[in-house]
Amino acid sequence: MNVSLTLDEVLPLIPDAVAEGSTSVTEIKGISSLDTAREEDLSFLGNSKYKSQVPLTSASVVLLPEGYVGQPKGNQLFVRMKEPSRGLAEICRFLEKRISPSPAPGIHETAFVHPDANIAEGVFIGPFSFVGRNASVGPNSEISSHCHLGDHAQIGESCRIHPGVKILSRCLIGDRVILNAGVVIGSEGYGFDQVGESHEKVPHLGLVVIEEDVEIGANTCIDRARFEETRIGAGTKIDNLVQIGHNVKIGKGCLIVAQVGISGSVQFEDHVVVGGQAGFAGHLKVGKGAKIAGQAGITKDVEAGAFLKGNPALPFQLAQRISVLQRKLPELFNRFAEEAGNK
Amino acid sequence: MNVSLTLDEVLPLIPDAVAEGSTSVTEIKGISSLDTAREEDLSFLGNSKYKSQVPLTSASVVLLPEGYVGQPKGNQLFVRMKEPSRGLAEICRFLEKRISPSPAPGIHETAFVHPDANIAEGVFIGPFSFVGRNASVGPNSEISSHCHLGDHAQIGESCRIHPGVKILSRCLIGDRVILNAGVVIGSEGYGFDQVGESHEKVPHLGLVVIEEDVEIGANTCIDRARFEETRIGAGTKIDNLVQIGHNVKIGKGCLIVAQVGISGSVQFEDHVVVGGQAGFAGHLKVGKGAKIAGQAGITKDVEAGAFLKGNPALPFQLAQRISVLQRKLPELFNRFAEEAGNK
Amino acid sequence: MNVSLTLDEVLPLIPDAVAEGSTSVTEIKGISSLDTAREEDLSFLGNSKYKSQVPLTSASVVLLPEGYVGQPKGNQLFVRMKEPSRGLAEICRFLEKRISPSPAPGIHETAFVHPDANIAEGVFIGPFSFVGRNASVGPNSEISSHCHLGDHAQIGESCRIHPGVKILSRCLIGDRVILNAGVVIGSEGYGFDQVGESHEKVPHLGLVVIEEDVEIGANTCIDRARFEETRIGAGTKIDNLVQIGHNVKIGKGCLIVAQVGISGSVQFEDHVVVGGQAGFAGHLKVGKGAKIAGQAGITKDVEAGAFLKGNPALPFQLAQRISVLQRKLPELFNRFAEEAGNK
Repeated sequence: MNVSLTLDEVLPLIPDAVAEGSTSVTEIKGISSLDTAREEDLSFLGNSKYKSQVPLTSASVVLLPEGYVGQPKGNQLFVRMKEPSRGLAEICRFLEKRISPSPAPGIHETAFVHPDANIAEGVFIGPFSFVGRNASVGPNSEISSHCHLGDHAQIGESCRIHPGVKILSRCLIGDRVILNAGVVIGSEGYGFDQVGESHEKVPHLGLVVIEEDVEIGANTCIDRARFEETRIGAGTKIDNLVQIGHNVKIGKGCLIVAQVGISGSVQFEDHVVVGGQAGFAGHLKVGKGAKIAGQAGITKDVEAGAFLKGNPALPFQLAQRISVLQRKLPELFNRFAEEAGNK
Repeated sequence: MNVSLTLDEVLPLIPDAVAEGSTSVTEIKGISSLDTAREEDLSFLGNSKYKSQVPLTSASVVLLPEGYVGQPKGNQLFVRMKEPSRGLAEICRFLEKRISPSPAPGIHETAFVHPDANIAEGVFIGPFSFVGRNASVGPNSEISSHCHLGDHAQIGESCRIHPGVKILSRCLIGDRVILNAGVVIGSEGYGFDQVGESHEKVPHLGLVVIEEDVEIGANTCIDRARFEETRIGAGTKIDNLVQIGHNVKIGKGCLIVAQVGISGSVQFEDHVVVGGQAGFAGHLKVGKGAKIAGQAGITKDVEAGAFLKGNPALPFQLAQRISVLQRKLPELFNRFAEEAGNK
Repeated sequence: MNVSLTLDEVLPLIPDAVAEGSTSVTEIKGISSLDTAREEDLSFLGNSKYKSQVPLTSASVVLLPEGYVGQPKGNQLFVRMKEPSRGLAEICRFLEKRISPSPAPGIHETAFVHPDANIAEGVFIGPFSFVGRNASVGPNSEISSHCHLGDHAQIGESCRIHPGVKILSRCLIGDRVILNAGVVIGSEGYGFDQVGESHEKVPHLGLVVIEEDVEIGANTCIDRARFEETRIGAGTKIDNLVQIGHNVKIGKGCLIVAQVGISGSVQFEDHVVVGGQAGFAGHLKVGKGAKIAGQAGITKDVEAGAFLKGNPALPFQLAQRISVLQRKLPELFNRFAEEAGNK
C-alpha cells in the first residue's frame, strides 16, 4: 500500500504515544508487517509473538506496546503506546478518509428518490439508486450505486450502504450500520404449507430490524419474519455470504463468519461466535457467549459458554479427542482381529 | 406486526369457518402466536402440540381445528375450520395485498425496455430495470428495480421478480415464479478442458428453464447448460444462496434449503427434500422422494425414498447410531487397552 | 440446443481434422452427446469410456480421436483429430459468437461514465452501469448492465463483466478476465479489534488484484486486503458463491469449486484444486498442486501434492479407510461386548 503521511499527521492521532529515537524520514510511504516493511514504512507489533522481528525490521517508524524491551536502531523511530493495534486503527481511519473520501452530500443525477421519501442532511444517494415511497435516510448516511430502499424502509444516521444493496419494504436499519455490496435485507422467508403433493406459500408479512453498529458482509441475505421481525442485535458483525432465516433473533456483539447458515426462528443470546460454514437447524436457542467451530452442524440448543465442534456437534475437547481416536481406528480393528485370531 | 383488519373482512376469507363465542373487538390489530398474543390480536392453533396454550391465550380471535375441545372465554371468538394453517394463509394473503400492494402496471420512467421486447398487459417494470431485445414478459408479472432480462429471455405470467435479479439471455421463466433479490439465472457453467497446465474455457451455449410455481431464494445462482438446458421442475422451492450447476435437472415439488450445492449434471426426481448446506458431487441421480439431511455430502446415486445423512452419507438411522458410538470411542479404546494389559 | 451450422463452416475450424465417410446433411441442427444425438446433429467422443456408443449414434457428424477404430455408417461423417474436446470447443466458440454476439462498442445511453474515466477503443458499457472517477477500462472489454466500477478501479483488455458486478475502488482486473453476474470485488475485510465487549472496525485500506485469464462465478465475493492486496493468480477459475477473505493469495491455474470458503491471509501456491463447500481456516499455506475434497475442513498447512478429505482433513486414502471402518463400528462394539461377556 502506498500512502503518503507525515509524522506530524500521525503522532497527534495517538494521544498516549511516547516517541523514542529519531528518523530523518518525515513522510511515511507505506504500512507493512515487521518482516516486509522497508525504509520509509510504518510497522507495528500487534501480537507479542512477533517481537523477535522488531530488531530486524527496516521500518522507519514502529508502533510498540509500552513494555517492549529494546531500543530503536539509528534513523528509526519507536512509538510506544498502550495498545499498538488501536493506535494503528486510528492511523488507518485517518488514512481511509484520505484514500476513499466520502462523496459530497447530495443525490446523484441518475438516482431516483420518491417525492414522499425523507432524506436528512448530509446524505449521499449514489448513481442509479432507488429510494421508495415514505422511505427515510438519516443524517450523514452514504448510499452507493444501484441500491434499493423499498417503501417505508428506514436507514439511520452515519450508515455506509455499499453498491447493489437491496433493503426491501418496511425494513429498519439502525445508526452506523455498514452493509457491504449485494446484501439483501428482507427477502421472503422460506416457509410453505404442504397441501397434498404441493407446497403452498406462507406469506411473510413481518420485517427485518438491524440494530446500531452492525456490519454485514457482501451478498449476505436476511429474510423477513412471518409476522413480527427478524432482528440483528447491536454491534454484531456478520461476514460474507451468510444466510439468516425468517424470525431469527441474533443478540448483541455476536461474530458470524462467512457462509454460516442460520435456519428460521433460531435465537442467539449476546456475544455468540460462529466459525465459517457452520449451520443451525431451525428453532434452536444458543446461549450467551457460546462458541461454535467452523463447519459445525448444530441440531440442539446450545448452553451459554459452550464451545462446540463437528456434526453432530460435541464439546470441543471431546470432538478433538474423538478425531484423534478415529485416526487410530485402522489400528484398533487390526488389533481386534489379531486378538480374535489368537483365541 | 400491526395490522388493521375487521372481522367482517376476515370471516368471508374462510368459507368453511364456524364462529363460536363473541367479542366486542371488531378490528384485529395483530397476528401472533398463542403465547404472545394480546387482546385485539388474532391467533391460531396450527400444530396440536400447542393446544394447552389455547385456554391461556389473550387473543380476541383464535383459529382452531374443527375437533378442538374447549370453549372461548368471555369476549373471545373461536373460529373453527378444517385446517387453521390454510385459513391463516388466506388471511395473510389478503393482508399482504394491503401491506405491500402491487405497483400499478406500467414501465417506470427510469427503466429501459428494448423496442423489440414484448411486454404483456398488466406488467410492471421497475426503476432502472433493463429488458433486452426480443425478451418477453407475460401478463401481470411484476419486475422490481435493477433487474436484467437478457436478449430473448422470457418470463411467464403473474411472476414476481424482486430487485436486482439477473435473468441472462435466452433463459425461460414459467408462470407464477417468484425470484428473490439478487438471484442469477443463466450464469456461465463451470467447465474447462485441461490443456497442458492451463484450463481452457468450455463455452456454455445452453440455457436455464424454470417451470411454473417455482420460488427461488435471494442470491441463489443457476448456471446455464453446456448445450441443452438446466431445468427446475414445477412447484420446486429453493432457498437462499443455493448453487445449481450446469445441466442439472431438478424434478417437481422438490424442497432445497439454503446454501445447498448441486454440481453439474445431477438429476433429481420429484419431491426430493434437501437440508441446508448439503452438497452433491457431479452426475448423480437422486430418486423420487429421497431426503438428504443438512450438511450431508452425497457422492453416489441415491435411491428413491432413501433418507441419508453425513459425509460420506449413510442411511439416517445408521448414521445416528454411528454418531452415538463415536462418542463412546474413548471408552472403547480404554477398555481395549485394559483388556490387552490383562493378558 | 438448436443451432444452424454448415459443414463448410465447421471443418475449417479444426485445421488437423481428417474427414471419413460422407453425409447428405450439409447443415448441422444440434450438438448432442452420442446417445441422445439425432440425425443432423453433431456429436463427439470426448472420453474413450463412451466409445461403444459410437457405432450406435444417430449423429450425422461425429468428432473422434485419431486412433478410434471403426468406420462411419452410411450417410455419416467421421471427423478425426488429435483432441475432439478441443475441436468441439472451437466449434462452440464459433457458435457462441453467433448465439450471443457481442454488443457493438459504445456506451449505453443509460450508463454513467465519469468524465475523468478512461475508456479504451472497442469497449461496451451497458445499461445503468457506473464508471467512477479515474477508473479505466481496457480495449474490447464488455461491461454489461448494472455494474459498478469504483474510483481508480482498472479493467484490462478483452474482459467480460456480466450484469450486476461490483468492482470497488482501486481494485485491478487483468486481461481476458470473466466476472459472472453479481460478483463483488473489494468488499471490506472481516477484521475487528476486541475493545472491551465490543468489536472495533479495522479499516481495510488495501485492494484486490485479479490477474489475467481468471474466471469468477456468480455472486462470489473477494475482500480487499488490510494494507496490501488480495490476489488471484493468472488462469485460476473460481466457481459461484465462493468466499475469499482479506489478504488471501491464490496462485496460478487453481480450480476452486462452488461455495468454498477461504479465510483471511491464506496462501495457495499454483495449481491447487478445491472441491465444493470446502473451508480453510485463516493464515494457512497450501502447497503446489494440493487437492482438497469437497466439504473438507482445512485447519493446518497443506503440503504440495497432498490430497486431503474430511474435517479434520486426512490423507484421502486414510479418510476413505476410516469411513469404511466407521460403518463397522456397530459390529465392533457388538463383538467387543461379546468378548467381554465370554470372560
